[in-house]
Amino acid sequence: MTSSKGVGVVETRYFTFAEPPHEFVLESGEKLGPVTLAYETYGTLNEHKTNAILVLHALSGDAHAAGYHAGEEKAGWWDNFIGPGRAIDTDQYFVICSNILGGCKGSTGPKSIDPKTGKPFGLEFPDITIGDMVHAQKKLVDHLGIKKLLSVIGGSMGGMQVLAWMIHYPDRIVSAIPIATAEKHSPRQIAFDEVGRQAIMADPNWKSGAYYDGPPPAQGLAVARMLGHITYMSDISMAEKFGRKKKSANEDGPFKFTAEFEVEGYLLYRGESFVRRFDANTYLYITKAMDNFDASADRPLQDALLDKDMKVLVIAFKSDWLYPTYQSKDIVRACKQAGLETTFCEIDSTYGHDAFLLEKDDETHLIKHFLRRCYQHLHKP
Amino acid sequence: MTSSKGVGVVETRYFTFAEPPHEFVLESGEKLGPVTLAYETYGTLNEHKTNAILVLHALSGDAHAAGYHAGEEKAGWWDNFIGPGRAIDTDQYFVICSNILGGCKGSTGPKSIDPKTGKPFGLEFPDITIGDMVHAQKKLVDHLGIKKLLSVIGGSMGGMQVLAWMIHYPDRIVSAIPIATAEKHSPRQIAFDEVGRQAIMADPNWKSGAYYDGPPPAQGLAVARMLGHITYMSDISMAEKFGRKKKSANEDGPFKFTAEFEVEGYLLYRGESFVRRFDANTYLYITKAMDNFDASADRPLQDALLDKDMKVLVIAFKSDWLYPTYQSKDIVRACKQAGLETTFCEIDSTYGHDAFLLEKDDETHLIKHFLRRCYQHLHKP
Repeated sequence: MTSSKGVGVVETRYFTFAEPPHEFVLESGEKLGPVTLAYETYGTLNEHKTNAILVLHALSGDAHAAGYHAGEEKAGWWDNFIGPGRAIDTDQYFVICSNILGGCKGSTGPKSIDPKTGKPFGLEFPDITIGDMVHAQKKLVDHLGIKKLLSVIGGSMGGMQVLAWMIHYPDRIVSAIPIATAEKHSPRQIAFDEVGRQAIMADPNWKSGAYYDGPPPAQGLAVARMLGHITYMSDISMAEKFGRKKKSANEDGPFKFTAEFEVEGYLLYRGESFVRRFDANTYLYITKAMDNFDASADRPLQDALLDKDMKVLVIAFKSDWLYPTYQSKDIVRACKQAGLETTFCEIDSTYGHDAFLLEKDDETHLIKHFLRRCYQHLHKP
Repeated sequence: MTSSKGVGVVETRYFTFAEPPHEFVLESGEKLGPVTLAYETYGTLNEHKTNAILVLHALSGDAHAAGYHAGEEKAGWWDNFIGPGRAIDTDQYFVICSNILGGCKGSTGPKSIDPKTGKPFGLEFPDITIGDMVHAQKKLVDHLGIKKLLSVIGGSMGGMQVLAWMIHYPDRIVSAIPIATAEKHSPRQIAFDEVGRQAIMADPNWKSGAYYDGPPPAQGLAVARMLGHITYMSDISMAEKFGRKKKSANEDGPFKFTAEFEVEGYLLYRGESFVRRFDANTYLYITKAMDNFDASADRPLQDALLDKDMKVLVIAFKSDWLYPTYQSKDIVRACKQAGLETTFCEIDSTYGHDAFLLEKDDETHLIKHFLRRCYQHLHKP
């Protein structure tokens, strides 16, 4: 189904806008500038610029969605889905992915230098929203000279950005693919995020966010990430992956409350490796942005989307208990009530929320055909 | 259905055994002594001592299961279920509840004084198992002169103790009621426990467990407890209780990452209040005991219970995703294969795991009739 070759070696680029005095106005009214977005592109933009697809990343993602950075062995976070012949076929489409505003992978965020003080923002960084992320992406799309995106696609927090694109810039998209997401967080989702934030803020190295000249709040962030990983898996996938298998004996010898079970070792490893690549303040800011996101806050989602001209593909996963299918169905209902051409598919996966990164065959089938249909519709004689 | 009057004012008592040199030998082979168990009793032991029921508590419970301590307003943790006319009718039965070995509410645990050093054990406290808890309870039952308990009953970790009673002392019980429990933790359950332990151990006040002469690891323990509370509720019960309601404005004024949503405020409050009444080292020891518990470790549970003479009532709750119904069904299957007279009921509750403390009417109905049947069977002419 997919080609064995991906997009190859890629490079991250940077786009800076809102150079003073033209500051970027956030939804809160606060101003921020200059703003830099790190981004990557794959494939070739066609002559009429009608084949561009914007990929939107989740909590721990970044601009590096596909291919390899020179000298690195790890492919981009959605490499299985982006490349020649893949779900988002780079022989046909031009793919853009940018690190979100507030991120820590090259875009302006809490660890960036505050031009007013010459020091990292820390908690002086303004509150941001999912809408702000999307408004910044729109500047990048303008900069690339693209009037209308063929599609916006993303899972989890990326799916929230898809919804924000649908609401704020319906005339700039032909289609939208929100995956494993919600129009607003349930109290359970908020609660998990809050426990993660409390773990970070309880770490004495956090220092109210002003830790950039010392050690980061690594233990707190690791605890937050461990918890995250539990919520990304399903009861079944954890049972299949780990069962009650014990770790092989530690070289240092066992001591009390060392990880004994493989599942504990896995979570510790994932927590520790996350800490090396992620900024704790970004974790705080963007989980808050997710918790505060409510696509129906001002008026019902169906009213916001009423009679807009776009096709929508909503994908959910059966074992995803973090973003349960009922939340995707709420989105589908709103889209249909608004009169949008909407397709819904619940994939029968056991991977839990992680399925949006893993269910390659089923998702590829759905996304590939949906995009082809959108492209053909756009170019029909 | 239940009387409006409970058991009234009660007192905690203490039973000490394994006075040196008669130490208590743990399942690990390590020795511990003297051992004290805090316990309470309600109702009256009949002449032939055939009406005694042992109530076994969960992670955060204690010996104070029913009634009121003099001068206190808070009833025991299962007061709704224990008292005249209640599920466990103290007009008819003699009820015993003891704080587990390893606990922090009067029984010997990590914060007790190590007779060898004159200082609190801390991590010098030996590893304990669910079996050890039950072996200690059996000493108390012996001390009270009871040859055979009419029933052993408990939810969650209490249910694990019920299973351990069934395995280790089948001849000492007429019946058993494991509620919302498992014969072994799934990797997901282990994972949640491990995140809680990591949160505690990441707190610099933890000091490898030697914190008793200074401030306790309160922030770490609070994070662990907050996470626990999420797992005790269901998606539905959280939605009904909190929705996305915001807290009223904080008097100190809002600052970044303060709790905004009611669900956040609730969890913070529960975390903070837990810290005042619970010992972090006990949290570590007993979550480890739960994770390591495996009723089928030596041989299948059905083999351990083969042809024993006891009646079993297994209760599960539909929305309990921490101890899902399939785990109770595994217990039921083993009991039936062993030839035990086994009744199973899945209560259609939306409360999640907390349901075992809350579903008063349904549980009362089941437990009351089951106990009556056991008592009648025992006293049939």
